[in-house]
Amino acid sequence: MIQKGLKGIVAAETLISHIDGENGQLFYRGYEIKEITKSFSFEEIAYLLWFGNIPGEKQVKVLKDQLKCNRDLPENMKMIMDQFPTNMDFMSVIRTAVSAEGGNADYIWKPTTSQAIRLTALVPTIIAYRKRQLEGQPFVPPRNDLDHVANYLYMLNGEVPLPAHVEALETYMILTLEHGMNASTFSARVTASTESDIVSAVTSAIGTMKGPLHGGAPSGVIELLDEIALDGDAEKVMNEKLMRGEKLMGFGHRVYKTRDPRAISLKVKIQELVGEDPWLDLAINVENTAVTLLEKHKPGRSLFTNVEFYAAAIMKAINMDAELFTPTFTASRMVGWTAHVLEQAENNTLYRPQSKYIGTFK
Amino acid sequence: MIQKGLKGIVAAETLISHIDGENGQLFYRGYEIKEITKSFSFEEIAYLLWFGNIPGEKQVKVLKDQLKCNRDLPENMKMIMDQFPTNMDFMSVIRTAVSAEGGNADYIWKPTTSQAIRLTALVPTIIAYRKRQLEGQPFVPPRNDLDHVANYLYMLNGEVPLPAHVEALETYMILTLEHGMNASTFSARVTASTESDIVSAVTSAIGTMKGPLHGGAPSGVIELLDEIALDGDAEKVMNEKLMRGEKLMGFGHRVYKTRDPRAISLKVKIQELVGEDPWLDLAINVENTAVTLLEKHKPGRSLFTNVEFYAAAIMKAINMDAELFTPTFTASRMVGWTAHVLEQAENNTLYRPQSKYIGTFK
Repeated sequence: MIQKGLKGIVAAETLISHIDGENGQLFYRGYEIKEITKSFSFEEIAYLLWFGNIPGEKQVKVLKDQLKCNRDLPENMKMIMDQFPTNMDFMSVIRTAVSAEGGNADYIWKPTTSQAIRLTALVPTIIAYRKRQLEGQPFVPPRNDLDHVANYLYMLNGEVPLPAHVEALETYMILTLEHGMNASTFSARVTASTESDIVSAVTSAIGTMKGPLHGGAPSGVIELLDEIALDGDAEKVMNEKLMRGEKLMGFGHRVYKTRDPRAISLKVKIQELVGEDPWLDLAINVENTAVTLLEKHKPGRSLFTNVEFYAAAIMKAINMDAELFTPTFTASRMVGWTAHVLEQAENNTLYRPQSKYIGTFK
Repeated sequence: MIQKGLKGIVAAETLISHIDGENGQLFYRGYEIKEITKSFSFEEIAYLLWFGNIPGEKQVKVLKDQLKCNRDLPENMKMIMDQFPTNMDFMSVIRTAVSAEGGNADYIWKPTTSQAIRLTALVPTIIAYRKRQLEGQPFVPPRNDLDHVANYLYMLNGEVPLPAHVEALETYMILTLEHGMNASTFSARVTASTESDIVSAVTSAIGTMKGPLHGGAPSGVIELLDEIALDGDAEKVMNEKLMRGEKLMGFGHRVYKTRDPRAISLKVKIQELVGEDPWLDLAINVENTAVTLLEKHKPGRSLFTNVEFYAAAIMKAINMDAELFTPTFTASRMVGWTAHVLEQAENNTLYRPQSKYIGTFK
């Protein structure tokens, strides 16, 4: 029997995360996500995903230093990126630059946490280098007094970001670090399963995340928020959409049959920031209206806000360009991908499913 | 239940190929491989895999012209490759150069046969450009009077190759164009399943093929042939290896429980070329001895010659450097990968298996 899309097939055992779609829960290494985003930094949770435990103060300090040491782009990577055509999309840029990093002969089987840290440190710089290049602006080198997320915003815009913006983006990035065996993570594990190197594995993952069916990046929701902001009447705009049979972007999730726990955590963070930015306020209002409308138009479907909905509001609030959404998602998911590659290497079996021939014989 | 390595799971229906491991048969689009290698060229069988039928004379001519038109490296790809460090391995070079080709904004969903042809045409030039660069030799531009395989050898060595060498390599390349849902092909389909572009898909495949567990490239067998050539006594060398409990490289296959049909086709071709090269003669002798010894040391295991065994002899005969084996395999398998990506796009379902959490909750 063919297993279309491998739906329901368990392709790996993992210690990294657990998704309980029925109850709307997500756990990283056994810790529930809503607890995690209350108290911890990007670096602490990256540490948790890579090493399996919440780090102590000294351990976080070491990790932060390692990330800082690995942020700079090698000169030849800059020269390679300078050759990319201006119409090359961001995901192709990241995929190619990360692949070029594999020119370093250190990347051999087995993968190491140092390699995972290096790759995670590089991606924000790659994104920022490209963005500044396209804008005809000089590259903003990383600043050692800024941590991972703050430094990313700093390199993008050339200004030290507002604390509220850092907090909002950091919450989003923590919530998207990892999400089980989605297609990109799965492709990283398939590539690693031949004992290929970690660069090959995450290069596969980046190419897989590039596809629009991957989901997770909030591009679709932005249009909805823009439209509502322009019109001023959230109920009218969404009601018309639903009457025309259109989908409301940002609602419903393949896995979560109830509230997306990441959306709840983002909402908590956004509520702390109320008054800081009109987009955050708008998002709270839109959600309430949308959930009521969806219950009316699609009764029983339980279409709740997903992670993309509040992510869009955050991206709006911090002035992140839409073309940087999937790249930013890539920057955070690099942690999950590399954690899975390390886990795959611990107890590896080659992925080699079968195909069924359905043609004739000549 | 976890499906380790997805063994026995049917992950796709396909019209492209069929492997009958029990009976030692391989079919491309319903044609048995032993018939194919007798009469057809690389281009004819690439056409068969992409379009589903054996082409007529005019159709082959058109395909050959398309491949020729797409062989040249764009200037910016050369400049990118000039930045690669000299110790960057060939597979990382190909992965990165192919990924850079994705800078062309034409690569969007859905994939097309023109894109498949373009990527297949590029890979030999990428390999040759790199080889000449490492040797400090000037790049040899492709020659329009030479077909795909002959031109590859020409660009590598700067000399028009002997017909016997072209024939031997062409047979190898036809036999390795495609082989069902191996790990690299599978990774290409997983990447394509998010509606990512064909460049992303084959970039994943290249990174997956890079791993030593992938198999197919004859690197391991070369050492055996070298050792036997040096010693002069095939039986003694192999007997000692088996007594020490070592594996004989080039014998046995995960899927084929009897003779590997690709090995048989290669042997037929090599027998036609007997006297052309001492390595081909040596290989024939070694096989006979090895099969007898294996039956004695591992009775009932049915360890027959696999495709890598005769491939190694061919590589020796045509003076192909060992570091070019997996790249050459990549150049041929690009046809199978792209055929699978095109097929995936025809009737796509996102690959999204599950993982099973085996940790504790905090």
